[in-house]
Amino acid sequence: GGNMQELSPERAEFLARDYSQGFIAFCRFEPESVAWGQFASSLAVQDFHRQQDGFIHAGVLATMADHTAGYAGFTVAPENHQILTVEFKINFLRPSYGQTVICESSVLKPGKTLIVAESNLWDQRGENRVQTARATVTLMAVAQEELARGGK
Amino acid sequence: GGNMQELSPERAEFLARDYSQGFIAFCRFEPESVAWGQFASSLAVQDFHRQQDGFIHAGVLATMADHTAGYAGFTVAPENHQILTVEFKINFLRPSYGQTVICESSVLKPGKTLIVAESNLWDQRGENRVQTARATVTLMAVAQEELARGGK
Amino acid sequence: GGNMQELSPERAEFLARDYSQGFIAFCRFEPESVAWGQFASSLAVQDFHRQQDGFIHAGVLATMADHTAGYAGFTVAPENHQILTVEFKINFLRPSYGQTVICESSVLKPGKTLIVAESNLWDQRGENRVQTARATVTLMAVAQEELARGGK
Amino acid sequence: GGNMQELSPERAEFLARDYSQGFIAFCRFEPESVAWGQFASSLAVQDFHRQQDGFIHAGVLATMADHTAGYAGFTVAPENHQILTVEFKINFLRPSYGQTVICESSVLKPGKTLIVAESNLWDQRGENRVQTARATVTLMAVAQEELARGGK
Repeated sequence: GGNMQELSPERAEFLARDYSQGFIAFCRFEPESVAWGQFASSLAVQDFHRQQDGFIHAGVLATMADHTAGYAGFTVAPENHQILTVEFKINFLRPSYGQTVICESSVLKPGKTLIVAESNLWDQRGENRVQTARATVTLMAVAQEELARGGK
Repeated sequence: GGNMQELSPERAEFLARDYSQGFIAFCRFEPESVAWGQFASSLAVQDFHRQQDGFIHAGVLATMADHTAGYAGFTVAPENHQILTVEFKINFLRPSYGQTVICESSVLKPGKTLIVAESNLWDQRGENRVQTARATVTLMAVAQEELARGGK
Repeated sequence: GGNMQELSPERAEFLARDYSQGFIAFCRFEPESVAWGQFASSLAVQDFHRQQDGFIHAGVLATMADHTAGYAGFTVAPENHQILTVEFKINFLRPSYGQTVICESSVLKPGKTLIVAESNLWDQRGENRVQTARATVTLMAVAQEELARGGK
Repeated sequence: GGNMQELSPERAEFLARDYSQGFIAFCRFEPESVAWGQFASSLAVQDFHRQQDGFIHAGVLATMADHTAGYAGFTVAPENHQILTVEFKINFLRPSYGQTVICESSVLKPGKTLIVAESNLWDQRGENRVQTARATVTLMAVAQEELARGGK
């Protein structure tokens, strides 16, 4: 069912610690907050996050949208499950060029197998923030022993 | 019109040189080939491209799909135009864990303002390659002087 | 700019009357409410809206999501512009089998050329309603004289 | 596995007969051909398929893209399974106004649970046909007894 449930503090801390590794640590995305069905992350923008015109690369925003949605998915999945991205779609609403990007993800539909989440990305420009992207992400929860055998 | 046209060798060389800068150089994507309506790229996979389960991160594939589609878009746009990603959607067909990823992008629909391209991503596993992702990317061609004034 | 603006009562009435014609009248979608950046519609479900398993067909929901988002787009476009759908993506969150479907669309990003909207669809089951689908829709505003010459 | 397999003539005939019922019969989509991983359909366009500007409504194309992809999915699923649409995304490449629309769907990735298919839609204009839309569709195969208990 989709009823609001609690997330134990231990699980929340584990997910926050687990968030930034591999490609995500390489990109320097940081966890910001975690609750049942919710995950937020941030990025202090560096020059290497930009594309040829000086804007933050769409791939940076897409990676952040996908990964943060995945961790929102973890908060509603059983603890022995891994989360795989089935697919996602992202719209770029405005060019991004601020100092910080914030990504707020929330679960639209928890499910035994499939979880649908959305990510809203904000470009912090001095005092103001504007929405720069919106993504919808379909996730699959797979028991760890299933994953070892190859998934989907 | 959508008729096949030629790309000058100078323009092809320029686009190949232009491909890998900023976040794309940081991710180590390399151009492979370029023709009218087509662009291919490759990635020699490193540990920093992986996620928590050892697979290549979905964000790596998404970034490659987006950027390579964008450069396929450049091949059909006027030379004084920049390409912005309006939106994209990517399906992850199989987990990716090979040594090399290949991305082949082609333009489905050239247009004065909007260009639609697709990207097919392949995971090279020893002698075999399997399709690991498929993306559809909507691009916008913006005259450089327009872009300076803020786009879309 | 994306600032909240007013919609004249005449324009609101015109859009509500204009909503249901051609395929939309054939499908029996009805306008419910209209405001700047917003449009809502409803469907009294008939047997011909169902698929082989008795659920409301995904195509019914997709058509309603697209068309209602398009009319939300009309509310932020100049009066001499038509709205074309560039692309959309829809997630089906739960099977739909109620007596009434409600679609609420709102503009995420108004723009001179491109408008991004979302549609949330609700399945009314007796006293309860549950969310059955969510769509993101990219629209293009085209001046009527441009459209006559062929669009995009 | 994703290996090419055969479809029995009985199963092919059953799926062709099964294709057009409920909302699909109402819309007058007709099956054209069926093979393992493939399904094609056609539509003889009537006035009620159009939108306010005289073009074929995006919802007609989306419904055809979804349903035909679903039946391509049936050809790779076990016979006691139903197919549900998880999500789809469709790009409208050119306005549609011909006498006939053809939809060709094929499975990109068969899977135990998730099946990914694409649909290419063609607008027949006299002797010529042009591609009018492209969709990517994520499907879920659910055993009939599971579906009775509520799916996903």
